[in-house]
Amino acid sequence: MSAPADLLLRTGPKAAEEVVDTYRELAGPVVEKVRDADFRTQWQAMADLGVLRLAAADDTGPGPVTRSLAMIEGIGLAGADPGICYALASQVFGMQFPLRAALAEDAWRAIAEVQDGGTLLCHALTERSGGSDPFSMRTRARREGDVFVLDGAKTFITAAPVADRAIVFARTGEGRSPFALSAFLFPLDIPGVVRAESFTKTALPSVPMGELVFEGARLPAGSLIGDEGSGLAVMASTTAWERAVILGYALGPMRRTLRRIVEWAAGRDHFGRRMGASHQVASRVSEMALALHRSRVQLYAMAALLDAGTPARQLAAEAALTKISVSEDYVRLTEHATALSGVRAFIADSELPADLHSPMAALTYAGPNDLLRVGIARQFGLPVEN
Amino acid sequence: MSAPADLLLRTGPKAAEEVVDTYRELAGPVVEKVRDADFRTQWQAMADLGVLRLAAADDTGPGPVTRSLAMIEGIGLAGADPGICYALASQVFGMQFPLRAALAEDAWRAIAEVQDGGTLLCHALTERSGGSDPFSMRTRARREGDVFVLDGAKTFITAAPVADRAIVFARTGEGRSPFALSAFLFPLDIPGVVRAESFTKTALPSVPMGELVFEGARLPAGSLIGDEGSGLAVMASTTAWERAVILGYALGPMRRTLRRIVEWAAGRDHFGRRMGASHQVASRVSEMALALHRSRVQLYAMAALLDAGTPARQLAAEAALTKISVSEDYVRLTEHATALSGVRAFIADSELPADLHSPMAALTYAGPNDLLRVGIARQFGLPVEN
Amino acid sequence: MSAPADLLLRTGPKAAEEVVDTYRELAGPVVEKVRDADFRTQWQAMADLGVLRLAAADDTGPGPVTRSLAMIEGIGLAGADPGICYALASQVFGMQFPLRAALAEDAWRAIAEVQDGGTLLCHALTERSGGSDPFSMRTRARREGDVFVLDGAKTFITAAPVADRAIVFARTGEGRSPFALSAFLFPLDIPGVVRAESFTKTALPSVPMGELVFEGARLPAGSLIGDEGSGLAVMASTTAWERAVILGYALGPMRRTLRRIVEWAAGRDHFGRRMGASHQVASRVSEMALALHRSRVQLYAMAALLDAGTPARQLAAEAALTKISVSEDYVRLTEHATALSGVRAFIADSELPADLHSPMAALTYAGPNDLLRVGIARQFGLPVEN
Amino acid sequence: MSAPADLLLRTGPKAAEEVVDTYRELAGPVVEKVRDADFRTQWQAMADLGVLRLAAADDTGPGPVTRSLAMIEGIGLAGADPGICYALASQVFGMQFPLRAALAEDAWRAIAEVQDGGTLLCHALTERSGGSDPFSMRTRARREGDVFVLDGAKTFITAAPVADRAIVFARTGEGRSPFALSAFLFPLDIPGVVRAESFTKTALPSVPMGELVFEGARLPAGSLIGDEGSGLAVMASTTAWERAVILGYALGPMRRTLRRIVEWAAGRDHFGRRMGASHQVASRVSEMALALHRSRVQLYAMAALLDAGTPARQLAAEAALTKISVSEDYVRLTEHATALSGVRAFIADSELPADLHSPMAALTYAGPNDLLRVGIARQFGLPVEN
Repeated sequence: MSAPADLLLRTGPKAAEEVVDTYRELAGPVVEKVRDADFRTQWQAMADLGVLRLAAADDTGPGPVTRSLAMIEGIGLAGADPGICYALASQVFGMQFPLRAALAEDAWRAIAEVQDGGTLLCHALTERSGGSDPFSMRTRARREGDVFVLDGAKTFITAAPVADRAIVFARTGEGRSPFALSAFLFPLDIPGVVRAESFTKTALPSVPMGELVFEGARLPAGSLIGDEGSGLAVMASTTAWERAVILGYALGPMRRTLRRIVEWAAGRDHFGRRMGASHQVASRVSEMALALHRSRVQLYAMAALLDAGTPARQLAAEAALTKISVSEDYVRLTEHATALSGVRAFIADSELPADLHSPMAALTYAGPNDLLRVGIARQFGLPVEN
Repeated sequence: MSAPADLLLRTGPKAAEEVVDTYRELAGPVVEKVRDADFRTQWQAMADLGVLRLAAADDTGPGPVTRSLAMIEGIGLAGADPGICYALASQVFGMQFPLRAALAEDAWRAIAEVQDGGTLLCHALTERSGGSDPFSMRTRARREGDVFVLDGAKTFITAAPVADRAIVFARTGEGRSPFALSAFLFPLDIPGVVRAESFTKTALPSVPMGELVFEGARLPAGSLIGDEGSGLAVMASTTAWERAVILGYALGPMRRTLRRIVEWAAGRDHFGRRMGASHQVASRVSEMALALHRSRVQLYAMAALLDAGTPARQLAAEAALTKISVSEDYVRLTEHATALSGVRAFIADSELPADLHSPMAALTYAGPNDLLRVGIARQFGLPVEN
Repeated sequence: MSAPADLLLRTGPKAAEEVVDTYRELAGPVVEKVRDADFRTQWQAMADLGVLRLAAADDTGPGPVTRSLAMIEGIGLAGADPGICYALASQVFGMQFPLRAALAEDAWRAIAEVQDGGTLLCHALTERSGGSDPFSMRTRARREGDVFVLDGAKTFITAAPVADRAIVFARTGEGRSPFALSAFLFPLDIPGVVRAESFTKTALPSVPMGELVFEGARLPAGSLIGDEGSGLAVMASTTAWERAVILGYALGPMRRTLRRIVEWAAGRDHFGRRMGASHQVASRVSEMALALHRSRVQLYAMAALLDAGTPARQLAAEAALTKISVSEDYVRLTEHATALSGVRAFIADSELPADLHSPMAALTYAGPNDLLRVGIARQFGLPVEN
Repeated sequence: MSAPADLLLRTGPKAAEEVVDTYRELAGPVVEKVRDADFRTQWQAMADLGVLRLAAADDTGPGPVTRSLAMIEGIGLAGADPGICYALASQVFGMQFPLRAALAEDAWRAIAEVQDGGTLLCHALTERSGGSDPFSMRTRARREGDVFVLDGAKTFITAAPVADRAIVFARTGEGRSPFALSAFLFPLDIPGVVRAESFTKTALPSVPMGELVFEGARLPAGSLIGDEGSGLAVMASTTAWERAVILGYALGPMRRTLRRIVEWAAGRDHFGRRMGASHQVASRVSEMALALHRSRVQLYAMAALLDAGTPARQLAAEAALTKISVSEDYVRLTEHATALSGVRAFIADSELPADLHSPMAALTYAGPNDLLRVGIARQFGLPVEN
């Protein structure tokens, strides 16, 4: 039964499908081995498979973005925890790719070790009182000669409790000027940086989330990303990258859910016939297939555009639409699976436990969909107010 | 702010709204006091408020069903755990009312103490291999003189790990005959009854769920509900009662969620204005109000019909439609609240944690909605196959 | 087959269901007879059945609003054109009931003949440039001694091309003051009133819609409804009445569509079995039943509240929610019917032609649902901007 | 304003986007000129632009399927009637491409003139009593020496009233054997072929639809497509082709609708600000953009797979999913546009008239979506019954 489910909907470029298959096979035994290990152990195990390594643009085979997307799909298909998949996609697409593009070659080389997994990045943007409005930011970096001194606090940061370095956005200017913000990349083990609260999460619980507090932290020289005042531009790049392809982390889990449900429905008896004989069940399975199919097609299309050299910021509208579409389809697929699983969906150690919080969180992470909708409408020329 | 949210949508009969208000006030301090207590303690505390007591049909004031519905809404509104609300509604509507209707007066009087909370009932129908098909039932009761001897196992039984008595359905005949099943009500502390597995649940975690295994259990004389072979008729009654009004347990939690979100959106700043100034937020809040309003209207309409003496079985189609409508609207309301809560929805100890599993379980508990749809279509005359 | 579909979902008050049945039977032959007649002939035929007559509040039997609702459902069920049903509901609920409440007894008696059908009212509110914002109104009434002189133009007025009298809203003050508007009721055959453009409609095409232009029209003394400056209050009353129960016009057409589809699916062969044997078909039919059931329950609940004397304006939130719910369910029911009808849905003279425009128009008529959502959120205390 | 709407969401291959632009420009004046002409005149005008011409597989530039898709999008964007777009897509994708693949080279060359527009094809599959079940087919072809004699009737055939040749499926064997059907291609002006009823349609009204009756029609030698008994295989090919890309006809109309709504909302005043300032409006416009974006991405992805030589039948699941996704998004886009258009949506000669029937018909044409869902679930291995 599992064969067809896995062989269908493989409409990506052939070279990409091969990477998916390779990584599914490679990751299988590793996933088993680290299943109950802590976050950093799982992270390192995946990194050792090469999942964090960005291909050079001139490699033969699929382009670098497509390749990263396919590797992450492959390990998800092998059963890697969705939280790990999310954290990998977040660092690769939301940090590594935009940093490689934004940093001078030697600056990139200095942190390129992140690709080995030994150093873990986090992305610190949101503040308690501010939600999604960058200009509500109160964290402030004040220049003192060569260096910047940082004061403030960031929250809801994926991986903050375990990360080694952080990309941090802070005010270096006033008001709502497009040049009021700057971006920094620096190690977290410097004086004045406190890892504050670590959250108990109901979505993607395996990946830690926490807060960072900065109390007069003197950032090492060279911490600035780009120029002073270019924070909003850096943010536009990291968020466009993220929205374009981060939902790739969901493809593996989605395919696994679909396969599991097909096997269940094909094998279970119900009212004297196979459960899968019912048109209701067929409709729900077909809706799940639809969710998966169009998510794959859109994500690999975005990857192809990025591989072709289209600047991420030019794809802001399309990236946001892809993020909305895939996250909603991820929720829908999970809801159909839940409906087909009956009471077992709500029994933690049953054959068919459902996790609804992680897919729902995809609607909010990497930009709440409602906020993205406002941005998209603006790009179409509507005078939308904040 | 909370005033309007609580004062709107009170379109039930005046006498019913007064019961809601009374029980909200009565339950408030009790809820606080027992918040962290175990299930039976919470159950007893609610029972002590009178929530399990069925009014006599000739009382002045709202009819008995309306009154029970309003009491349960009131304690939910006071903050009682949704799991407790569910368990109360399940016993009151799915067991007490149909038993009062089905049992001879002295048989009912013999168990009427359940209304005091000291004795807890459970309803054992589903079996591991069978899902929702009653004729897949393998539990069997074999008559030996005056008594029945029971063998088999039931699963997914709300309250099984803590209940004192059970309503159990078992085969007393063969095949798919409408008279092949019988219903029994008996104490669980007799020889041959084993409380097997207790489940770890992700939905309504506060209310225990488990299995019962019967190994040659000799049921006391008088355990049979109605006549031998009337099991399907008893089941039709308990399930129609359940579907008609059990979702009443969700009204309190829904109203609390709506109120909390309104307060949050009205108070929070976002992009330089109140979050609640946005038409997107207004639309979501309005959708939540819609979900709540039409759920209340439908549930109180069903209660009024039952109070008017309409037999539950005659309302099977309308009961199923009400159950589908309210359960789907409960999910929808929760999803809108989650979208408006941002990342906080997924932080367990935040101001706005979301519980998506409990509402989703309402789609399955008391009859999976897909199965109900098949039954409804049949009542409209369609020759729907199983 | 048609029996069950018609006998289910009759959960309104018994007296109301009897009125529905009576009017279905009464209207049957009349509907046949006037099927191809012009609008006024159909209108008069329905009026002759008593559909426009408001019951006295102290009549035995169902209250006046419930009775009107049931009569209109009955004639719709008998096959009256949805456009006629809409026009009747619009005059009865959006004009007659609020006028009876607002006018002094002798003023009401003066126009009470509208209940015989010989005089037709229309309700002129919207202007070309303004959409749904009453304060964008440019039509102006200037007092000259005892009378008012009216200048301006109104558009999108149901029945304007054939009506005898109009309720017209106009500025008598400046700006966005709550007392800037006044309401008038006067005959359309006075000098200075021009019936301008008559529209070709795709929704409810049988009921005419047009424009009225006022060029120095001197309104007869006594045309003012209420006091000068009370226009907004009158409008709040007419719109609350309308939203609460006008969608009652859709109940008859919805029930007819459901019945037709059930008969089709039960009778047609498909892939070697009855079409209605499929769970997909069952699900769609069940969704249609859900749409109808909860629309009926909500509308009759609103009617009961109005009959109990609750002022319409106090029900503004609930009325708007009812209007949104029923209009969306009307669309949904029609879409399911269309999907089940196959190509025949799009063949004008087939057995199963679909009309999608009329149900979709219900989302907009009597207040666009998006606008209603904004108003509802405001009533819950959100500071929603315009 | 129109610039952004047209410049966004152009994420197809660059060469394809250029074809879209070229054909939009080419078609503009032609569309204007033939706007009110009859169907064949419009058809010929589009054919003269080269829209029916299939590129050779080894052309430089985009592949042949991609090129056809882009040409049809371009003329739709120029304002060609959706009915014409549909008819072109239907002949190109559902007939020309599969015929070029299925026919021997000389047989193809014999009918290759269809690419000039002078000869019009139609595709005759459905029968009155049968709906979508091919084995319910009663039309029968009986071999007499070299030729076949055809008896039976087909209905709901796009272009039947004006076509010159037809692809017709008929029984040449018994029962539900996979070899019971055969496919024929022959001219309609032979004895024994009657063009029967021509339908008045509410969807895509500009393209004629009708019936064909065969009364002992002796088909010319060489009419058989492929071998006797290969009808089901031919049908699998034509339907897979159709489902994969036929919805391309909707891209132009979807883009035009989006552009028109953006212009309207950006320009119109509403409650003292631009209508497009509202987050509700932004959300709807963003949903429209989502519908368009993922439809384009999926359709061009299918075209790329077909251009890469993937046999259409291998893409049956993906083709069906694409068809479902695009048709549902076409409906959704149209519904959002309708909601934003207010009453004007239902005034035939307003600035914003809505046509809801044509998009809804896309759910049924080229395979009803419910039926496609059953087929998809089967391909995933579910034992779905008919």
